[in-house]
Amino acid sequence: MRNKVLIVMGSDSDFPIMKACISTLVEFNVAYEAKVCSAHRTPDQAIRLARGAAEQGFGVIIAAAGLAAHLPGILSACTTLPVIGVPIKAGALAGTDALYSIVQMPSGVPVATVAIDGAENAAILAVEILALQDERLAQRLLDHKTKMIESVQARQQNLEAKLHDLH
Amino acid sequence: MRNKVLIVMGSDSDFPIMKACISTLVEFNVAYEAKVCSAHRTPDQAIRLARGAAEQGFGVIIAAAGLAAHLPGILSACTTLPVIGVPIKAGALAGTDALYSIVQMPSGVPVATVAIDGAENAAILAVEILALQDERLAQRLLDHKTKMIESVQARQQNLEAKLHDLH
Amino acid sequence: MRNKVLIVMGSDSDFPIMKACISTLVEFNVAYEAKVCSAHRTPDQAIRLARGAAEQGFGVIIAAAGLAAHLPGILSACTTLPVIGVPIKAGALAGTDALYSIVQMPSGVPVATVAIDGAENAAILAVEILALQDERLAQRLLDHKTKMIESVQARQQNLEAKLHDLH
Amino acid sequence: MRNKVLIVMGSDSDFPIMKACISTLVEFNVAYEAKVCSAHRTPDQAIRLARGAAEQGFGVIIAAAGLAAHLPGILSACTTLPVIGVPIKAGALAGTDALYSIVQMPSGVPVATVAIDGAENAAILAVEILALQDERLAQRLLDHKTKMIESVQARQQNLEAKLHDLH
Amino acid sequence: MRNKVLIVMGSDSDFPIMKACISTLVEFNVAYEAKVCSAHRTPDQAIRLARGAAEQGFGVIIAAAGLAAHLPGILSACTTLPVIGVPIKAGALAGTDALYSIVQMPSGVPVATVAIDGAENAAILAVEILALQDERLAQRLLDHKTKMIESVQARQQNLEAKLHDLH
Amino acid sequence: MRNKVLIVMGSDSDFPIMKACISTLVEFNVAYEAKVCSAHRTPDQAIRLARGAAEQGFGVIIAAAGLAAHLPGILSACTTLPVIGVPIKAGALAGTDALYSIVQMPSGVPVATVAIDGAENAAILAVEILALQDERLAQRLLDHKTKMIESVQARQQNLEAKLHDLH
Amino acid sequence: MRNKVLIVMGSDSDFPIMKACISTLVEFNVAYEAKVCSAHRTPDQAIRLARGAAEQGFGVIIAAAGLAAHLPGILSACTTLPVIGVPIKAGALAGTDALYSIVQMPSGVPVATVAIDGAENAAILAVEILALQDERLAQRLLDHKTKMIESVQARQQNLEAKLHDLH
Amino acid sequence: MRNKVLIVMGSDSDFPIMKACISTLVEFNVAYEAKVCSAHRTPDQAIRLARGAAEQGFGVIIAAAGLAAHLPGILSACTTLPVIGVPIKAGALAGTDALYSIVQMPSGVPVATVAIDGAENAAILAVEILALQDERLAQRLLDHKTKMIESVQARQQNLEAKLHDLH
Repeated sequence: MRNKVLIVMGSDSDFPIMKACISTLVEFNVAYEAKVCSAHRTPDQAIRLARGAAEQGFGVIIAAAGLAAHLPGILSACTTLPVIGVPIKAGALAGTDALYSIVQMPSGVPVATVAIDGAENAAILAVEILALQDERLAQRLLDHKTKMIESVQARQQNLEAKLHDLH
Repeated sequence: MRNKVLIVMGSDSDFPIMKACISTLVEFNVAYEAKVCSAHRTPDQAIRLARGAAEQGFGVIIAAAGLAAHLPGILSACTTLPVIGVPIKAGALAGTDALYSIVQMPSGVPVATVAIDGAENAAILAVEILALQDERLAQRLLDHKTKMIESVQARQQNLEAKLHDLH
Repeated sequence: MRNKVLIVMGSDSDFPIMKACISTLVEFNVAYEAKVCSAHRTPDQAIRLARGAAEQGFGVIIAAAGLAAHLPGILSACTTLPVIGVPIKAGALAGTDALYSIVQMPSGVPVATVAIDGAENAAILAVEILALQDERLAQRLLDHKTKMIESVQARQQNLEAKLHDLH
Repeated sequence: MRNKVLIVMGSDSDFPIMKACISTLVEFNVAYEAKVCSAHRTPDQAIRLARGAAEQGFGVIIAAAGLAAHLPGILSACTTLPVIGVPIKAGALAGTDALYSIVQMPSGVPVATVAIDGAENAAILAVEILALQDERLAQRLLDHKTKMIESVQARQQNLEAKLHDLH
Repeated sequence: MRNKVLIVMGSDSDFPIMKACISTLVEFNVAYEAKVCSAHRTPDQAIRLARGAAEQGFGVIIAAAGLAAHLPGILSACTTLPVIGVPIKAGALAGTDALYSIVQMPSGVPVATVAIDGAENAAILAVEILALQDERLAQRLLDHKTKMIESVQARQQNLEAKLHDLH
Repeated sequence: MRNKVLIVMGSDSDFPIMKACISTLVEFNVAYEAKVCSAHRTPDQAIRLARGAAEQGFGVIIAAAGLAAHLPGILSACTTLPVIGVPIKAGALAGTDALYSIVQMPSGVPVATVAIDGAENAAILAVEILALQDERLAQRLLDHKTKMIESVQARQQNLEAKLHDLH
Repeated sequence: MRNKVLIVMGSDSDFPIMKACISTLVEFNVAYEAKVCSAHRTPDQAIRLARGAAEQGFGVIIAAAGLAAHLPGILSACTTLPVIGVPIKAGALAGTDALYSIVQMPSGVPVATVAIDGAENAAILAVEILALQDERLAQRLLDHKTKMIESVQARQQNLEAKLHDLH
Repeated sequence: MRNKVLIVMGSDSDFPIMKACISTLVEFNVAYEAKVCSAHRTPDQAIRLARGAAEQGFGVIIAAAGLAAHLPGILSACTTLPVIGVPIKAGALAGTDALYSIVQMPSGVPVATVAIDGAENAAILAVEILALQDERLAQRLLDHKTKMIESVQARQQNLEAKLHDLH
């Protein structure tokens, strides 16, 4: 059964952003492996990772990259698993380059792109995909939606406290 | 079993683009339903569609929208199914507005965004997701990759013919 | 009589920006209520707020949101009151995403968009709208224009002091 | 009673876009006057129009402009009525210049900005504002929302016809 | 003889940038006056300043503004003197809004736009214009070009020192 | 006396745009010469033109260029005359590249930038500069402002005719 | 000796743009081979082409691609030959996506990027590189510069004819 | 033999970025000279440097510039050597202006553009060019690729340490 998530990042410098992806997967109790791998510095490894992923029990690949950000596309070229791309904010163009590089894939080789630095959403999207074959995951997603409602209610109370201070 | 795809578009004027999505699903022999539904003109219907989708056997939602393009996000807010967003090129900003509106979702509510007008890739991504629980679909994806290789070879021959004409 | 302003923000983290909106309404002696509510985390609450606003005596809704920023549009879909949208500067695209998401609404469902982080102007626009049925508010707006002239004169004196220091 | 709409456009070449604004106001049975007036070619007239608008029974000003698009802002500087700005798509920057010029107003002088070429929404926003003091207008806005739902249903039938042709 | 420069800025908060404009004019021994004046807060004063400028001996107007940045255009509408516009970097769009607002003027009413925050170049451009009728100014401009060559030579020596440190 | 305008364009393909510049100068009865010259293909000629311009009686240089658009900047580097730059809309970036290349000049070497394809305004700006030493030109600029007012009035009549047709 | 140029394009649909690259190489009498190859559809072939290029006598690789445009970067990852990237104008973002994808390469793996659709310049850059070891090529480049000067002179005559027609 | 690299930067303030270019050339044992030279402040020197470069044994020119960034283009106009352009992040547009100014060169005069602040890649590209005639350099490039693989492996270990800390 393919129920693990493979997280690939271009550099360990992407970790401070991708930490939220990992902790969200942990929160949902989804198994993952995390790799540093570069489309440009270690293309053979990138291709090997993608080609072997399905067989090793991965159901989804999450790839984070900044700048030219070819990694998610190259992985998608070498697998039929869904690949989620996380554009990382970096350099002078602040992630616009990575967003365009990741999302504008040609017909036949999709990358499911999330927001710039959208590491948490990459994890939730992966969970949503895996939950199609795992009712317990589906239930946890419903619980997560409930928690989000509660968090908005908590924020309403924060706001009221701030308004109280204002007057 | 959730193995159908729900396609939602903001208007039937999106059909010329979304046709490629539908014909690709048909090619992969994946069942689908297509709906016109607007986050702004028929918000109740949008919410009802999203909330009922899992129960009705849908495994993936594909939503296409142009301009402010809130449809994919609102659907995602009301389901735990993976939602794929297709930004449509329209108006003065030529799809950049739709891309930003769809991809920049806040934490907790992801939309799997494909390229502007990337209708075919939305379908393939949906197939990749459904293929996790359907080996025959997985095989068809592998066949599709082989066909892409053959199409590149055909294009190589076209190029050679054009080069021949050039000299 | 609908003479109150409903302020909705996606998170209490928008408060530091929206504070200027609130204090301006207070300055104009306009009643308001402020709510944290998210188009994506609490869509039902968002719809309920918008649908009930007119009946509860609100004449204008001001909605602030960053990133994909669907909140003002969803509120506008569910009311016939004028909705003012405030794009919040946040994330890698620094508010351009929110601006496009808020302003590029499709025909039939307008959002009156002000500048990125333009919280004060959202309040003044709300006052201008309410002043159509309240002569005292209209007079306060005229006074405000006079105060702006005086503030420019004060700045002229600051400039002269700085020029004096320069030489 | 201020219940008329003053429409100001920088040139009669904006009429093909602004026609939708006018016909929407006519549809809602709202009185209007339309003027050609330029912030740069006839600044005195622009200021006179804005300063006299309230007295002449106008409740809302709608101003359309392309390129540098200073007209809405200058009108807003000279009135306490709400001013709605319509950025017109024109020239090499295709309306991005007009959008930024209109929406990014400084504190104290707001312009309620709608989408690029968003002439119809400018009219609906004006109607929403005037409807605060006119119950019949408020009712027509509710009817308009119902018509939008019906139009989506009609589009659903169009889509089904197209799908039928596809197969 | 019109040989003075009128500097207009939207707020004294533009002074830190515009200081370089003033000190450059002083360096070239060109007379100037500096005013705080806003197209939106004090439109009458803006028009009066522009209309009276030629008569009061000004040959060039330099206007600095950020955000919607209508000031240079409005001044140009009210004078036949050359108006130089300085877009100020401010707010979420970092001066792109001001650049577009200032440079994209419609036919008939030009603004001579310099770089974002290009205060020094506004002064030099003003000097170039005034030097057409003042040979001594023309000579000082030639001297300034010579000084720029010398400053490049000094920077070459700095570079060599840094290279020396590197090895 | 330096009262002629030197027009330099990167290619005769810029003529359809720059024709408006020439006919405006002719309308104002200002003498001009027009040259094709490229910063990149004929840099020596560009430098020679700029260095000789003042001596040959030119008071202003107008330079039009598309894409990388270095011509105005290089001419400005080689003269103390005011140089007006006209960014030409061309290629995939539609003139944004030319605008940035022309307007973002470093300190010391200004280019007076007008709108993308703003050929007519380049001419009027040149006339405004030359008019500082020529009262008859100054009078023609005032006449031109009057004509613009009349043209707006004519457009008002066009609009009324169109409105009449609409009803 | 490595003196041939390998041209790789993502699709034969790039041929209308890349034709100028080929005819320029022919004009300079430089041998070339042209291949259709995709980073995403035929990644193995892309890697094989790049890895074998030096051995097969290629000195430079020119790669053209639109949209996500990963081809030049992937080729560069697999060779130590200089790789020239040509961003192709295609899709809603008109080549901006391809430009950013090609030029923003991470440290260690450069792509020499030319203008969007800059096929001719890719060829000339390749010739400049090969000319370092081939004096006859260097001479042809000098001849080409002379021809460019003559072409500017011819355009000057065209301009004069057009000016003559104008009067 | 032309085997040296000429590095030209518009100002010594570009040194903190260009240091990486120099140290990379040193690492590859390639001779270089570094000059401060400005297209606008010292155009004669820029032309002289470019025209004399080939004769003085340079095989490649690397030019760094920010803002309008004309330097690489002007150098390329005056040499048949390959010119590599490094856009420097500076000012309000954060290097987008420099990127467009450098990469969008007209046909006939190419600049090999690398990433914004891509100083290291400029050096590696220069080495790749020089290595065509120098087998030892080619070998060092292969070694560099190996080192990059090892650095990715080191980063994998860093990541694992961080993951260990996380749990």
